[in-house]
Amino acid sequence: MRLAICPGSFDPVTNGHLDVIQRAARLFDRVVVLVAVNMGKHGMFTVDERCEMLRRATTHLPNVEVAAYNGLLADYARERQAAAIVKGLRAMSDFEYEFQMALTNRKLNSEVETVFLTTSTEYMYLSSSLVKEVARLGGDVSEFVPACVVNDILNKTERTEKNDR
Amino acid sequence: MRLAICPGSFDPVTNGHLDVIQRAARLFDRVVVLVAVNMGKHGMFTVDERCEMLRRATTHLPNVEVAAYNGLLADYARERQAAAIVKGLRAMSDFEYEFQMALTNRKLNSEVETVFLTTSTEYMYLSSSLVKEVARLGGDVSEFVPACVVNDILNKTERTEKNDR
Amino acid sequence: MRLAICPGSFDPVTNGHLDVIQRAARLFDRVVVLVAVNMGKHGMFTVDERCEMLRRATTHLPNVEVAAYNGLLADYARERQAAAIVKGLRAMSDFEYEFQMALTNRKLNSEVETVFLTTSTEYMYLSSSLVKEVARLGGDVSEFVPACVVNDILNKTERTEKNDR
Amino acid sequence: MRLAICPGSFDPVTNGHLDVIQRAARLFDRVVVLVAVNMGKHGMFTVDERCEMLRRATTHLPNVEVAAYNGLLADYARERQAAAIVKGLRAMSDFEYEFQMALTNRKLNSEVETVFLTTSTEYMYLSSSLVKEVARLGGDVSEFVPACVVNDILNKTERTEKNDR
Amino acid sequence: MRLAICPGSFDPVTNGHLDVIQRAARLFDRVVVLVAVNMGKHGMFTVDERCEMLRRATTHLPNVEVAAYNGLLADYARERQAAAIVKGLRAMSDFEYEFQMALTNRKLNSEVETVFLTTSTEYMYLSSSLVKEVARLGGDVSEFVPACVVNDILNKTERTEKNDR
Amino acid sequence: MRLAICPGSFDPVTNGHLDVIQRAARLFDRVVVLVAVNMGKHGMFTVDERCEMLRRATTHLPNVEVAAYNGLLADYARERQAAAIVKGLRAMSDFEYEFQMALTNRKLNSEVETVFLTTSTEYMYLSSSLVKEVARLGGDVSEFVPACVVNDILNKTERTEKNDR
Repeated sequence: MRLAICPGSFDPVTNGHLDVIQRAARLFDRVVVLVAVNMGKHGMFTVDERCEMLRRATTHLPNVEVAAYNGLLADYARERQAAAIVKGLRAMSDFEYEFQMALTNRKLNSEVETVFLTTSTEYMYLSSSLVKEVARLGGDVSEFVPACVVNDILNKTERTEKNDR
Repeated sequence: MRLAICPGSFDPVTNGHLDVIQRAARLFDRVVVLVAVNMGKHGMFTVDERCEMLRRATTHLPNVEVAAYNGLLADYARERQAAAIVKGLRAMSDFEYEFQMALTNRKLNSEVETVFLTTSTEYMYLSSSLVKEVARLGGDVSEFVPACVVNDILNKTERTEKNDR
Repeated sequence: MRLAICPGSFDPVTNGHLDVIQRAARLFDRVVVLVAVNMGKHGMFTVDERCEMLRRATTHLPNVEVAAYNGLLADYARERQAAAIVKGLRAMSDFEYEFQMALTNRKLNSEVETVFLTTSTEYMYLSSSLVKEVARLGGDVSEFVPACVVNDILNKTERTEKNDR
Repeated sequence: MRLAICPGSFDPVTNGHLDVIQRAARLFDRVVVLVAVNMGKHGMFTVDERCEMLRRATTHLPNVEVAAYNGLLADYARERQAAAIVKGLRAMSDFEYEFQMALTNRKLNSEVETVFLTTSTEYMYLSSSLVKEVARLGGDVSEFVPACVVNDILNKTERTEKNDR
Repeated sequence: MRLAICPGSFDPVTNGHLDVIQRAARLFDRVVVLVAVNMGKHGMFTVDERCEMLRRATTHLPNVEVAAYNGLLADYARERQAAAIVKGLRAMSDFEYEFQMALTNRKLNSEVETVFLTTSTEYMYLSSSLVKEVARLGGDVSEFVPACVVNDILNKTERTEKNDR
Repeated sequence: MRLAICPGSFDPVTNGHLDVIQRAARLFDRVVVLVAVNMGKHGMFTVDERCEMLRRATTHLPNVEVAAYNGLLADYARERQAAAIVKGLRAMSDFEYEFQMALTNRKLNSEVETVFLTTSTEYMYLSSSLVKEVARLGGDVSEFVPACVVNDILNKTERTEKNDR
């Protein structure tokens, strides 16, 4: 049995993330979608909210589980005896950063291989921060994220605006 | 009549921005230089100050107007029935980000086309943040920005230093 | 009246080329699709065949004409008093080469501006050489090129194979 | 059982290729190293010689086989019901080309996923053409290729030089 | 006598930095490792701590000195009559930023040349922020930094955590 | 005394090459401009003609010599006890290729360091092949190459055209 980890901040999950998770679920026996706990950065959603949204968006994928981790990805991969870390690539700048992380994770845990997949071209321009920016400026995000999380984003965006005043 | 929009934060306008605006003014019947209102980031200049500096720097271009907008660029383009969004490209990393924005804006408003122009090679290294950094460290910015905004930058830079103490 | 030139080798025209030509036809009053005559390289199609295929593929665009030219693009642009050279960008490596050509053409003719457009994401991976490679290996090219040129490619590909034996 | 294909021209196999093949052999149940038959280009080695060298270099990998194919990779993947096409990434320019091929192969065969792996940093600069260039100029290639193919390269290089005189 | 400057924030010095400093020390008669004082950003270490760590890590290099500067690099280079600014390149994004800085510094001081070196492949993925991230998440940084600064990082990391509680 | 090598094909020398050679001549005690003898490719000029043009273009630089070499650059560097190989960087794609060559040369000769310089922005788009293309299409190359080689290019271009008929 080969287990793969799809790490990310997923703040919130987009159709691009979901596309990569689905592709990973076909390539590996079991996939863990791992929400990185980054104490330094405040997100739109809490780690628990992100996990909950990911669980809703992946209910149709029986070999996918969702988890959060507050440590080195290389250590989590060792604990779970993961065969692969799966990352989606959209653009050059993704590639550079992910390449650097892949080489670092190899240094920290030589047992786990980083595997890059490409998203569908229609999702290539998508990112969580773009989704949040469009929502903040009153645009429609329903083409960018799974239907089951649109309301979460709208609710959170309204709340943010009220806090601003 | 075809209208083009040159969006940006222009904090402050540089010779590179001005070069792109002038090229756009030759290609289109009317050009709106649009200062994006970004509530999240504090600039060196207020949105009003940026507009005022842009107006001074573009007085010689009769078909150019300056405006500010607090919403989605795609929506503003729709309101003004713009034919094009014009962006200057300096480098690879510009290209990636602008490419992503162009695809997003196409998704949000299929009527407006993003058009990329290249600046003169002498302005290719210029950015507003570089200008602010040079000014902060006591360097001469008169080669980097229109003559009519040099004093605005010097005044703002002095004020910032006094606040620091 | 502003005239734009879409230069290329178009050997053969792809859906990606057509997408850029259509976008240019909305932005400019008149568009010349210009087949570059490159004596050094032998294409799959002669320059006359390429022009003929382009004319068939652009009959629905009344402000588009097709021409061939055996000289410097900058000189052709001067002769036609073109306002712009229009290029589609697909990827980083396109960008670099096109950037270099844009700066050269500006040096040779400062009156003409190079304008970059982005193709639809579904055509971003397309190139004439990829189409020829797929055809040569027996794949279906009907998703990659305008319907009116599929047979031209199949005929030419068969002929090439017969010559090989 | 999941089968992966490692396609390439392997003219000749390098330590970088071998590194990617070994990583693929850990991630998938079976790996086919597929030598692409490209009628257009003359290599240093014939397709049969390349296969033979690859077989020698992969004898220690029981789940790896070597084959040659004279058609579309997407069709071969369909025939073998492959789950993945595996490519090693060394640099940006690799990434661009491979990205384009991945999107094309997805269009031609939506069942097969392209998977990118990174080579060890010590092999990141390696390519078959670099190996041939170093050999041609009298340099030592034993650090660049598997020990079992060094003599094949030296023999072929000497023969080429004799033909030149 | 030719003097070169190796500027950076060195927060903290990594094996990659040290590799570039050693290469510069072979190419130039005297090398100044210059810690940039950036009032805007709070580092893990103070400027004095960074200088002290750099001095410890370069004691074996007799023609290397360490200094800090609170102004324009171009001005410092002029004061010291430096022949070169030396920067290590790891990746594309480094290149773009460094290229921009090199062109700016040339504009501000035409006497000093920016010189780019490449680090060893084993250090290509290294950065100070990656080292801090690994340390923060409890990973081992002894492969990433000079042995003489490992404890400084561990001490600082512990202190940060205590402050967080 | 530190010696640097500026390798290239220089077919023909451009203002961009000359700009890099001049910068190298300020940084090192002695500079060898080394014309690579590449038996595989036919240039516009013979190796002897290229050397002769380079000598004419560098007569004002007393510490610069011109040579040709028919072997590994790493070996030539060892023979001359060179401290550095100097390369000009214009663009991303240059960077990638040069990076690969730098790592290869380090593997083949650890004594010599590859040093990258940036050309003036006005020469950033220049390449020998672009110069030849402009000349072939009847354009003016006098802004692109040293004045003393303009006639060599015109003569060679005419001769080529006569041979074509």
